[in-house]
Amino acid sequence: MAYQLNEKIRDLRPYDPITGTYPIRLDANESFLPIPNRIALKIMESAAFTAYNRYPDPLASELCKSFAEFYHVNAAHVTAGNGSDELISVICNAFLMKGDTILTVSPDFSMYRFYASIVEAKSIVYAKNPDLTIDVDKMIELARANDVKLILFSNPCNPTSLGLQKEEVRRLITSVKALVVLDEAYMDFWDQSLLDEVEQYDNLMILRTCSKAFGMAGIRLGFAVANPTLTNALKAVKSPYNVNSLTQKIGSLILSEQELIHSGIEEIVFSRSMLYSEMMRIEAKNRERMHVYPTAANFVFIQIAQAEEIFLALLKSGIAVRFMGDFLRVTAGTMEENKEFIKVFETIMQG
Amino acid sequence: MAYQLNEKIRDLRPYDPITGTYPIRLDANESFLPIPNRIALKIMESAAFTAYNRYPDPLASELCKSFAEFYHVNAAHVTAGNGSDELISVICNAFLMKGDTILTVSPDFSMYRFYASIVEAKSIVYAKNPDLTIDVDKMIELARANDVKLILFSNPCNPTSLGLQKEEVRRLITSVKALVVLDEAYMDFWDQSLLDEVEQYDNLMILRTCSKAFGMAGIRLGFAVANPTLTNALKAVKSPYNVNSLTQKIGSLILSEQELIHSGIEEIVFSRSMLYSEMMRIEAKNRERMHVYPTAANFVFIQIAQAEEIFLALLKSGIAVRFMGDFLRVTAGTMEENKEFIKVFETIMQG
Repeated sequence: MAYQLNEKIRDLRPYDPITGTYPIRLDANESFLPIPNRIALKIMESAAFTAYNRYPDPLASELCKSFAEFYHVNAAHVTAGNGSDELISVICNAFLMKGDTILTVSPDFSMYRFYASIVEAKSIVYAKNPDLTIDVDKMIELARANDVKLILFSNPCNPTSLGLQKEEVRRLITSVKALVVLDEAYMDFWDQSLLDEVEQYDNLMILRTCSKAFGMAGIRLGFAVANPTLTNALKAVKSPYNVNSLTQKIGSLILSEQELIHSGIEEIVFSRSMLYSEMMRIEAKNRERMHVYPTAANFVFIQIAQAEEIFLALLKSGIAVRFMGDFLRVTAGTMEENKEFIKVFETIMQG
Repeated sequence: MAYQLNEKIRDLRPYDPITGTYPIRLDANESFLPIPNRIALKIMESAAFTAYNRYPDPLASELCKSFAEFYHVNAAHVTAGNGSDELISVICNAFLMKGDTILTVSPDFSMYRFYASIVEAKSIVYAKNPDLTIDVDKMIELARANDVKLILFSNPCNPTSLGLQKEEVRRLITSVKALVVLDEAYMDFWDQSLLDEVEQYDNLMILRTCSKAFGMAGIRLGFAVANPTLTNALKAVKSPYNVNSLTQKIGSLILSEQELIHSGIEEIVFSRSMLYSEMMRIEAKNRERMHVYPTAANFVFIQIAQAEEIFLALLKSGIAVRFMGDFLRVTAGTMEENKEFIKVFETIMQG
């Protein structure tokens, strides 16, 4: 009686991270800023006073309060998750019924469609304009024509680095019956968030993360913000103890550091600007071979001929970036990392 | 265009933990043993040397290795999760297709059926014998007659505290085509694990947790153990970074403390035996009103008349236990906690 894997998982392979040691990691859109010693000490103190043998607060109340204070939203609208990843998976599971249709956009964060495929939703993909911008009217048309139940996309977009103006997003939300899940993972680097108007909509859920601007990818902490009806449903479906005790404490601690976070964001945006203008300078000399997209995030997205060869040549020089078909995605690093990347990249382009 | 919650989540309410402060918590089957200072110091050190701005190892390789060494299994058969809860949710999502049938047993851990309902599986429930034991032949019959794809139950059972002998479990596994997911969360307190024969079966997945015997409910860490085919499928479906950096380190650290864990288990089993024999003593005087079940776990399960009144009276005295219809589930606590519970319980019974 040999057990057979079902068809939706039969051919899947586990996530295969870049292996090997690369001194310069610009591949995962992480923050290049380590936490200050002052914060490390506070984390150590939290670690000392944690009752490890007891379950965490299932509603992560203190943590949600800290998030609400940081962003000036209502704590009753906030759900904490084990990274936005968990929230995306739970949202697909909860808000899609069998046979329901989800609308995603392409290119976008690949995991959206993956989670939708695991819940066996019907999937419709809006292909972006050739310049990778979004035509909201086309999305609305698709959503209406296909009775779409869930629309899920990132803004600013990972990987394109492009942002959609909030008027456009508002128009989408108010023109469809679907639940719109807006992943604002990179919105701390831009100014078009809809966070402060979330309760005006019955069909908007916004995702935020501590992995990017907050430099906390290691603790896995994401948030969903939505009106109380949606929030209650999400909290009811998530695993009861989804955010562990230490992450709750560390998250609260970081979210109370307004100045630290804001100066960190400034530093990251400065690095991104430097990386972007250097890439533009190189583009000016290589217009037939590459194109750099405007960026609203902490990375730069580049269309480039022979992307894979360049990716591999960079790896050989100890620099990891993200290779995506005809594109490379390069995270803003420290000044030194950016300089080294640009030096090596320019050499490869001239080679 | 008012957005409407779909029918599977419309009436759900978020998990509502016992609120209020109760000096004695015997309601969540946690370990009563805090970590020694020596371990707390090591955790603080780990916390100091964590690169919070970087993503965790997606495969938690070191952690899975530590688990494998502790239990003498093959590390390639181990998947780490954000508590067993996450693993149960992911397993239901991955190994059940639309229209597939899951078999659970009753009474058992209530979350199994909840996760199955969210993925909209057809659900069949085997009702245990009146004495709460399991008739494996009946389970096999049900599984075969209904083309069941997944069988999910706990052994030893939460909440009944009863264990199923491993020959019986083996017979179930080898008699069905379904994937058998065996939640051995409480197996550290008993000796009938199938962990060391997991690779002999193409349809067995065993769940373990650090929340009970290891006294680490706060870090959310569970494991699934299965043959490489099942393990690869599970790793491919889980969120890539589901176990955070600190939990990976703390988990490795605890799993390398063989002696500490084993003496902790002895202490918990001793406490449980004391609690059990005291409850048996009280039962002897109240046969018409209560029945205490044999226990293979770190808690005692009691059928009792007026369970809710007794539960509330205990709460009033500052003691939280778990109230479940006609039953109370009482976690083994420290000697002092047990004594206080027994004193108050006996007074209530005499009242």
